[in-house]
Amino acid sequence: MRIRPAVESDLGTIEELIRALAEYERMSGDVVMDSERLRRSLFGDHPYAEVLIAEEDDGEPVGFALFFHNFSTFLGRPGIYLEDLFVKPEQRGRGHGKALLQRLAEIAVERDCGGMEWAVLNWNEPSIGFYRSLGARPNDEWTVYRLTGEALERLAGA
Amino acid sequence: MRIRPAVESDLGTIEELIRALAEYERMSGDVVMDSERLRRSLFGDHPYAEVLIAEEDDGEPVGFALFFHNFSTFLGRPGIYLEDLFVKPEQRGRGHGKALLQRLAEIAVERDCGGMEWAVLNWNEPSIGFYRSLGARPNDEWTVYRLTGEALERLAGA
Repeated sequence: MRIRPAVESDLGTIEELIRALAEYERMSGDVVMDSERLRRSLFGDHPYAEVLIAEEDDGEPVGFALFFHNFSTFLGRPGIYLEDLFVKPEQRGRGHGKALLQRLAEIAVERDCGGMEWAVLNWNEPSIGFYRSLGARPNDEWTVYRLTGEALERLAGA
Repeated sequence: MRIRPAVESDLGTIEELIRALAEYERMSGDVVMDSERLRRSLFGDHPYAEVLIAEEDDGEPVGFALFFHNFSTFLGRPGIYLEDLFVKPEQRGRGHGKALLQRLAEIAVERDCGGMEWAVLNWNEPSIGFYRSLGARPNDEWTVYRLTGEALERLAGA
């Protein structure tokens, strides 16, 4: 198996993996991305995120990680924010997930980042145990607030 | 008063405001940024974040917002992540904070973003009340995990 950066011709694979992740999380109804917008966001003039693909030796894609850079003011340095990490359920337990995390940690070190972060569902004990075993620590004094839809437009005066 | 995007000559002001924020949060000991790294991160070839400055009519800076783009896979769209929002304590209550948030909401709409997000300390009831009054909602089913320092380097095999 190997980990490699995604290129534009992987777009169909990425879409398929995003939909598989949503299905796994029983959130398929929340997926409203369209292919063209995804292409522009990942491979346009101003990419908003990067993707790593995990694949078998024969080239079959089995998982992905999607990440972007965040920024810590106090450190004065960027970090890596891992938005999605997913390995197809039937391919789990063989190290693809850890290999994706390892490659991300390498990228964080290569790019002089202060660290990497990601959000975990509070009930997901197996994942939390795994992340803790790697040395990750919860940032549980903080809660993220979101402003979307009509409330966002109201504040914008749009 | 007005809100404007920061330019490179604002770097000293931005540093001063970051230190004032850290002092206010009693986290001054955690500020390890240096000026040159901050300059590269904000105004170099590959900027990691953008800054808005709130200032009085006479040009005196009284607050700032530092933000970057995140990305939602399910929406297939970028969002705005507000890393820091700060108004000098002696200048509060006059609408600078809300004006910064309004400008950010405008930017989110202009750039076709799905929304804006930011983290709030769980004990900060006055801020939470204010954010809720704008229509922001907590993402409290998730906790952010962080991997930094030696644990990050160990995973990277560095």
